[in-house]
Amino acid sequence: MSDAAMKLVVVGAAGRMGQALIRLVHGIEGVTLHAAVARPGSPFVGKDAGEIAGLGPNGIIIGDDPLAAFLHADGVLDFTTPATTNEFAALAAQARIVHIIGTTGCSVEDEATIAAAARHARIVKSGNMGLGVNLLSVLVEQAARALDPADWDIEVLEMHHKRKVDAPSGTALLLGDAAARGRDIDLASNSVRVRDGHTGPRKQGTIGFATLRGGSIVGEHSVIFAGEGETVTMSHSATDRTIFGRGAVKAALWARDKKPGLYSMLDVLGLSSK
Amino acid sequence: MSDAAMKLVVVGAAGRMGQALIRLVHGIEGVTLHAAVARPGSPFVGKDAGEIAGLGPNGIIIGDDPLAAFLHADGVLDFTTPATTNEFAALAAQARIVHIIGTTGCSVEDEATIAAAARHARIVKSGNMGLGVNLLSVLVEQAARALDPADWDIEVLEMHHKRKVDAPSGTALLLGDAAARGRDIDLASNSVRVRDGHTGPRKQGTIGFATLRGGSIVGEHSVIFAGEGETVTMSHSATDRTIFGRGAVKAALWARDKKPGLYSMLDVLGLSSK
Amino acid sequence: MSDAAMKLVVVGAAGRMGQALIRLVHGIEGVTLHAAVARPGSPFVGKDAGEIAGLGPNGIIIGDDPLAAFLHADGVLDFTTPATTNEFAALAAQARIVHIIGTTGCSVEDEATIAAAARHARIVKSGNMGLGVNLLSVLVEQAARALDPADWDIEVLEMHHKRKVDAPSGTALLLGDAAARGRDIDLASNSVRVRDGHTGPRKQGTIGFATLRGGSIVGEHSVIFAGEGETVTMSHSATDRTIFGRGAVKAALWARDKKPGLYSMLDVLGLSSK
Amino acid sequence: MSDAAMKLVVVGAAGRMGQALIRLVHGIEGVTLHAAVARPGSPFVGKDAGEIAGLGPNGIIIGDDPLAAFLHADGVLDFTTPATTNEFAALAAQARIVHIIGTTGCSVEDEATIAAAARHARIVKSGNMGLGVNLLSVLVEQAARALDPADWDIEVLEMHHKRKVDAPSGTALLLGDAAARGRDIDLASNSVRVRDGHTGPRKQGTIGFATLRGGSIVGEHSVIFAGEGETVTMSHSATDRTIFGRGAVKAALWARDKKPGLYSMLDVLGLSSK
Repeated sequence: MSDAAMKLVVVGAAGRMGQALIRLVHGIEGVTLHAAVARPGSPFVGKDAGEIAGLGPNGIIIGDDPLAAFLHADGVLDFTTPATTNEFAALAAQARIVHIIGTTGCSVEDEATIAAAARHARIVKSGNMGLGVNLLSVLVEQAARALDPADWDIEVLEMHHKRKVDAPSGTALLLGDAAARGRDIDLASNSVRVRDGHTGPRKQGTIGFATLRGGSIVGEHSVIFAGEGETVTMSHSATDRTIFGRGAVKAALWARDKKPGLYSMLDVLGLSSK
Repeated sequence: MSDAAMKLVVVGAAGRMGQALIRLVHGIEGVTLHAAVARPGSPFVGKDAGEIAGLGPNGIIIGDDPLAAFLHADGVLDFTTPATTNEFAALAAQARIVHIIGTTGCSVEDEATIAAAARHARIVKSGNMGLGVNLLSVLVEQAARALDPADWDIEVLEMHHKRKVDAPSGTALLLGDAAARGRDIDLASNSVRVRDGHTGPRKQGTIGFATLRGGSIVGEHSVIFAGEGETVTMSHSATDRTIFGRGAVKAALWARDKKPGLYSMLDVLGLSSK
Repeated sequence: MSDAAMKLVVVGAAGRMGQALIRLVHGIEGVTLHAAVARPGSPFVGKDAGEIAGLGPNGIIIGDDPLAAFLHADGVLDFTTPATTNEFAALAAQARIVHIIGTTGCSVEDEATIAAAARHARIVKSGNMGLGVNLLSVLVEQAARALDPADWDIEVLEMHHKRKVDAPSGTALLLGDAAARGRDIDLASNSVRVRDGHTGPRKQGTIGFATLRGGSIVGEHSVIFAGEGETVTMSHSATDRTIFGRGAVKAALWARDKKPGLYSMLDVLGLSSK
Repeated sequence: MSDAAMKLVVVGAAGRMGQALIRLVHGIEGVTLHAAVARPGSPFVGKDAGEIAGLGPNGIIIGDDPLAAFLHADGVLDFTTPATTNEFAALAAQARIVHIIGTTGCSVEDEATIAAAARHARIVKSGNMGLGVNLLSVLVEQAARALDPADWDIEVLEMHHKRKVDAPSGTALLLGDAAARGRDIDLASNSVRVRDGHTGPRKQGTIGFATLRGGSIVGEHSVIFAGEGETVTMSHSATDRTIFGRGAVKAALWARDKKPGLYSMLDVLGLSSK
C-alpha cells in the first residue's frame, strides 16, 4: 500500500505558498494531490485547484471543509497561520494522517496544542522546512563543538536581495545559534554584529556576523571557521523559494510509516540527537 | 602537574618536517621542546636544535638515542618512516609517553606493531594530521548519509599549486571516500573523474571530481551537495603547511590524560563514532 | 519623445523565449509591448499575448504579419531562427526600427544579410545577450593581457545543472577564448581539458578547464588567475534564465537613439574597443 | 646588455621588509642583489646581508652610504619612510637608476620632491605594490562604469586575520573608491558600512561594505555586482605577504628600459588610461 502515491491535502490553497505547494505536489513522484482547502468564504472555493495554480485544470475543486478533505488522505501540508494550524492539528489527529507544519509564529499555547495532537498524529514541524539549512545547522553545531575557540574563530556571512529590510537574516541567526550551542555559550552576549573603524583585535570566542545586500539573491549563508593556517567553510545557497515546499513533501513521505509523535526536520534528515 | 608545559620530543629533527615541528613547539603555549633526535650518523647530531630550525640557539642538543630522549618526556612527535616509527612505538610504550604518529606508508605489519604498542601507550595516528580536513571528512559523511542521492548530487573540487603532479589530490579522494561511505557505496565504481565533450546527463548517485592547478595554492577542497533549488558546500582551505604539525601538537595535548590506546584525529576532535 | 515608453515587438511569440520576453517587457519600466508575432499558421495567431504568457489578457492579439507589427513600433526583440531573423532584418530596416538579435546559428551568408540591413537599421546582435558574461569576457581579456603567463596560471571553472549533456559549457569556452585572446595565443592548442592520474606539473601558459555538474544550477563560471602568493578570480553566477531577455531589452533601450549600424553587447556596455 | 641580471639595491635592509626583499631578489630570475643599505649607526651595518636575511652568507655587506650603493646599480627597492625616500629619490636620479617606491605616508611636499626627481629618473610609486589588487581596481572601475546603478548593486567584502584592528581594510576602501570612480560618485557619501537590525530596503546607488575577521587570513577581498538574476564577482586572495615585494621587483624589471617619469603599477600592468 505504501507503494501507492501518498495522497496529500494542501491547506491555505488560495495563498501564494498554497499554490506553490499544489504545483510541487503535481511535479514530485510518489505524491498526489488529494484535496485543496481554502478558508470558508474565500472566492477560490469551488474553483479548480490546478487552474488556480497555473497548471491547467486538474479536477480537484478547492473546498472549505478540512475534515472532509482529510478523511481519505494520507497527509496535509500546512503553511498557514497559528490559529488554523491548531484547528488542522486536531482534525489531522482525528483522521490519523500526517501533518506537516511550516506555519511560523506559534505561541507557547499553540505549541502545547500541537504537542497534544501529536499523541495521535505524526506531525513534522519546523520554522524552516529547507533540508539544506537544517542539515547545515547540525553540522555547524558539531564543528563548533569540535574546534577549540582558542584556535578557531567563527564568522557568519549572509547575502540576500536588495529588498530585504532586516539584518542579519533569521537563518544567519539560526546558524549562529547552532554555533553558540556547539560551544555552550549564549549567542547574544558573544556576537559581534558590526565592525567599522577602529575595532581592535578580534575578541576570542566571539561569533561575528556580516551582511551583504544586492540584486535578486534568494539567500546565501556561510559559516566560516578560521584557524591558524586553515579555514573550514560551510555554506548554503538557495536559488529557488520552492525548497521549503520540497522539504515539506520530503517530510510527509518520511513520516508516512512512522509512529505518532512530534518530529523535526532533523528527524527527517536522520540527524536528530534524540 | 598537567598544568606544567607538556615536554615533547621531536624525532627526525634533521628533516624539514622535524625542523618545522621544533619551530611550532617553540611557538605554542602549553608545550615545550624536551629533546630532539636524529638518526645515528646524521651530521646534525650534536648541533643546537634551535639554531638548526632558524630560531637561534635554544640549548637543546640534537641527540641520536631515542630512549634517553623519551625517558623524562611526556610525548613524541613522529613524522618519520615506517621503520623508525615502529622502533619509536616500542620505546614510547616502554617510556609510557604519548606517541603522535604522522608517518605515512605503514604496512599491515607496521600497523600491527603499532597496535601492539598501543596496549601500553597512548598513540594518535593519522595519515593527515590537519584538524580541518579530519573534521570535514566526518561532516561530509554525515551529510551524504542524510541527503537522498535521488535529489542531491555530490561533487568534489580541489585546487593546488602548479607543481603538483597528480590529480585528484589524496585529500579529494579521502573526502570522496567519506561521501561514498555515507551513501554506503563504493567510491571507485561510482566516481566520475573526467568530463569533456558529450558527457550525457549526470548519472544519479555518482560522485564527480574536478581539479584546478595554478600558482602557489597550498590546498583548497570543496565538497558540493547540489539539490533542486539549493546547494550545500563544505570547504577547507589550507594556507600554511604547518597545519599538520599544529594538529600533531593538539593531538599530543589531548592524549596527555587519556588511557593507553590507539586513537585517531577524530577522537581528538571528539567526533569518533566509536 | 524618447521619454515615452519604447514600443517593442516580440517575434516568435508562440515559443518559450517569446513568452518570457512578453512577461519581461510587461515588467520593465520604459518599454511597452506594441505587438506580438508568430509564424503564419501557428495556433497562437489570434490569441491574446498576455494570456498566452500567463499574465492575464493584455489586449495585444498575436499576429502573423511582421511588417504591420513593425510599422509603428520602436524596436523588435528577436530570438528566433536564422531564416526568420534574415527576413525580420530587412523589414526592421524598412521600418527604421531597432532590431535586437539573440538568434544563434547564423551562417556567413546570414551575417552578411544582417550587416547589409545594418546600413539602415540599428541592430544589436550577440550569441549571449547576458550583460554579466559579456562584461566578464572583456575584463578577462584585459587581465590575461596584463598578467605575465610566466607568473600567472589561468583556470576556467564552470558548474551547471545535472541535465546538461556537454562539457565544458559554451560560456566557459567563450571565457577561455577571451583569456587566450588577451595572451595572443590559440585556445585549442593551449587548453588542458582533462586532469586525472599522473598529470605532471602544470605546463606554463596553458589554460585549464574544470567542470562540475549537479542539482539545478543555472550557470556558474569562474576564471581564476593564480600567481605566486595571490589569486585573482572573476566569476559570474546566473540564477535566472531571464537574464538574456533582460539584456535584450537593455540593448533595445540603448540603441534607441544611436545611428544605424551593427552593434554588440560590448557597445551596449560601453566596453567596445572599436 | 639588458639580458644581464638587473642589479638591485635594497634600502632599509635591516627591517623586516628589507630582509624579505633580499630573500626575494635572491629567488627571482633576472635580478641580482647589488648592494644593501641600512641607516648610519644601525647595528646591521657591516654584517652580511644574506646571513641577516636567513639565506646564508652571500658576500654583500650591508653599508650605510646609499650613493655609493646606487652608483653602479640598475635600480633600488625602497619600502622605507617618507624622509629617507625623498633623499633616495634625489640620489637615484643622480645615479640615473630605477627607483621603486613602496613607501607610504608621503606628504604633498614629499610627492612634489619625488615628482621633481622623476624628471631624471624612472620612478614607479604605489601605496600597494601587489599586482593583483592593482589589476582588480582597474577592472572594478570599468565594471562599475559599464553596469547601470539602477540594475546593479555593488558590495565590497573583505576578510583578514584576527589581529587586524580596523575595518574595512585600506584595500577594501581602495576597491570601493574604484567602484565609486567608475560611477562618478563620491564614495564616502554613498557607502553603507554597517547593517544591523531594521535597515530598510537597500538604497539604489550605494556601495556596501562587510567585514570578516578570523584566523590567520592574509587578505581576501571581493567586489560583488549583484543584478537581477545574475551576479558578477571579482576577488583577490593574498596568501603570502611577499606579493608586495614581488610586485616591486616586477616594476623594476618593467621600468628598466623606460624613459624618465613617474609611473604607477597600472603602467606596469599596461592598464594605465593615461
